[in-house]
Amino acid sequence: MRDVAVIGVGMHPFGKFEDKGLKDLGRVAIWNAIKDAGISPKDIQVAYSGNSLAGLLTGQEGVRGQTITRDAGLAGIPVINVENACASASTAFRGAWLEVASGACDVALAVGAEKMFVGDLGKSIAALAADSDIELARMGLQFAGMYAMALKKYMDLYGATQEHFAQIVVKNSHNGSLNPDAQFKKPLTAEKVLGSFVMADPITLLMCSSISDGAAAAILCTKDLAEQYSSNVPVEVAACALRSGIWQAPGKEFLEDDIVTLTAEQAYQQAGIGPADIDVAEVHDAMAPGEMMLYEELGFCGKGEARFLVEQGRTRIGGDIPVNPSGGLVSRGHPVGATGLAQVAEIVWQLRGEAGERQVANPKVGLCQNTGGYVDGDAAACCVTILKV
Amino acid sequence: MRDVAVIGVGMHPFGKFEDKGLKDLGRVAIWNAIKDAGISPKDIQVAYSGNSLAGLLTGQEGVRGQTITRDAGLAGIPVINVENACASASTAFRGAWLEVASGACDVALAVGAEKMFVGDLGKSIAALAADSDIELARMGLQFAGMYAMALKKYMDLYGATQEHFAQIVVKNSHNGSLNPDAQFKKPLTAEKVLGSFVMADPITLLMCSSISDGAAAAILCTKDLAEQYSSNVPVEVAACALRSGIWQAPGKEFLEDDIVTLTAEQAYQQAGIGPADIDVAEVHDAMAPGEMMLYEELGFCGKGEARFLVEQGRTRIGGDIPVNPSGGLVSRGHPVGATGLAQVAEIVWQLRGEAGERQVANPKVGLCQNTGGYVDGDAAACCVTILKV
Repeated sequence: MRDVAVIGVGMHPFGKFEDKGLKDLGRVAIWNAIKDAGISPKDIQVAYSGNSLAGLLTGQEGVRGQTITRDAGLAGIPVINVENACASASTAFRGAWLEVASGACDVALAVGAEKMFVGDLGKSIAALAADSDIELARMGLQFAGMYAMALKKYMDLYGATQEHFAQIVVKNSHNGSLNPDAQFKKPLTAEKVLGSFVMADPITLLMCSSISDGAAAAILCTKDLAEQYSSNVPVEVAACALRSGIWQAPGKEFLEDDIVTLTAEQAYQQAGIGPADIDVAEVHDAMAPGEMMLYEELGFCGKGEARFLVEQGRTRIGGDIPVNPSGGLVSRGHPVGATGLAQVAEIVWQLRGEAGERQVANPKVGLCQNTGGYVDGDAAACCVTILKV
Repeated sequence: MRDVAVIGVGMHPFGKFEDKGLKDLGRVAIWNAIKDAGISPKDIQVAYSGNSLAGLLTGQEGVRGQTITRDAGLAGIPVINVENACASASTAFRGAWLEVASGACDVALAVGAEKMFVGDLGKSIAALAADSDIELARMGLQFAGMYAMALKKYMDLYGATQEHFAQIVVKNSHNGSLNPDAQFKKPLTAEKVLGSFVMADPITLLMCSSISDGAAAAILCTKDLAEQYSSNVPVEVAACALRSGIWQAPGKEFLEDDIVTLTAEQAYQQAGIGPADIDVAEVHDAMAPGEMMLYEELGFCGKGEARFLVEQGRTRIGGDIPVNPSGGLVSRGHPVGATGLAQVAEIVWQLRGEAGERQVANPKVGLCQNTGGYVDGDAAACCVTILKV
């Protein structure tokens, strides 16, 4: 397969945009990516569109991507609508990567857009259910409850405390305050986080990502032609791995052979590097405390050691392995089908040295980790992408 | 890119299955394809799942494919949920083809499933809207109306009559009566078709595909390894082209540069053959009269000549270019997100000489054409696949 580079990225800021629909959000992200790459829209040969909830939330069940790409002025090209819950946008990115890597085309677009504020919060939250037959109809279990059960076990095993979890929010809300595209720009204190409403012990309200409107896009190109199309520093896709979860076999250790660990191993192998080589990462802190488990699953530290990373501030912007410099899902916001491409955009800006006040010092290799859905005891999809300059 | 072969296909019959859900339908199709190929489910390295309506109709908005593949016993592999309205299953097929062609994996599964009978016909029909902002909210226009307008123009230009349209249904319902997987197995007469309720002149009720439950699946393998995995005759994917539509520029002739014509041209070019080389075809007769326009768009005859093909019976099973030997959408049924893979299954059976009573004489090259959605004046997606032995 051919080497692929990201030559342009763009976003529609994340937040609450009552006067904008899915097409408005997507169009802005696409055109910001086109302008960033400096290409003509006619150069785009295929589009992958990620969205998860528009069927239930806006009634636009079919061909969502075509309504977005046509609104952005693109027509005639293949448009593939992909869905993988919260990992929909990274799945779109992987599709665009495979098109270019395979040689099927030279320039591909990936866009992710989500419109979650539709005037009925209950409807937005119900739409997030994993396996509707099981979680909604039979168990009444939702994501906060599932995270809470895992976190309780994690606390018992490794001595992590609610204070550590709050520190993740303190870090990410500080980072979000430096990000003009973030939904929440107010830095939070640990006291404020711990004092907020308990959603599902040990998770408090301010540890949770909120519903959000937004979009993000990336333009990918075969590496050989990157400089012909764009004057941007080409950001190479060193790995793009996607998996679904497996049943946790009895007798396995906690977080052993889970979807994130296995997907990350596959990505490191593809890229020919290890976790120690990662200079900056965007990870899926849908519930902020989960970020600590992700440090371990991604190999940034050993089992049970995430709390030391937190205590030593090593994942802050000035640390040796900065995580979620964008503010992450909890502060940048989490418009479900857009998040994975917002992660890519952030890492591209970081690697190009264009991340402004939240710039990490001279990163060469960045990682994006995006998880989605829940089926039978594990996540339904996880995508780990490694980018480098 | 590598040559790719279909080594197994399977279906869940199309029809009304009140006691079965989306997973039940999908599981049966997947396992029939696995058994047909004679592989182990462990050989499958990636799955593409096509579905269009489950968000609105069953409430399963996210990770539909994972709920199906896990129910079928597959776990851990990447699962990509794709949607392109009535072309969702052919889009899934194209994804699986690209995975294998690119070298990303050796064996891929494509499955398409749709559950449309949910106890509320109005809900099922409303879910079929194209661009919900425009067709549903502003114009109240649905597919039958759009087809009717095009057909009126076609009749004026080329002298086709409602009697020709009825003959398409006579042919397809005869073929469907020979297909054990078909939803409608009763042969219809022209009198019956013409005498049925007028949906949107010139379209009568019996010219329309109905709502349906069903699923279909295919297993694809790199051609070099096909015989290692399966004892079936490998059916080569000679072309798989996908496009979205473009505005019909003013001054263009009717059916010039439309999505089907352009996609077919691309597929013929990929395959290095022309329409005269096609021995059998499955086409998208969502409204049966549309099949006549498709003959022309696919190059089976010149402009305005489809009526001669009908009059001479050339597209019947015994003719020189049999079309829809399965019964097509109008008789086999049209569970939206499954149709494209049912077309592939039929062509694979035909090329392997396994189509039973509806077998076409000794075909070597077959074509599938699957169209979906409607955005701004043309279809949102069209996929043309050419298979050969």
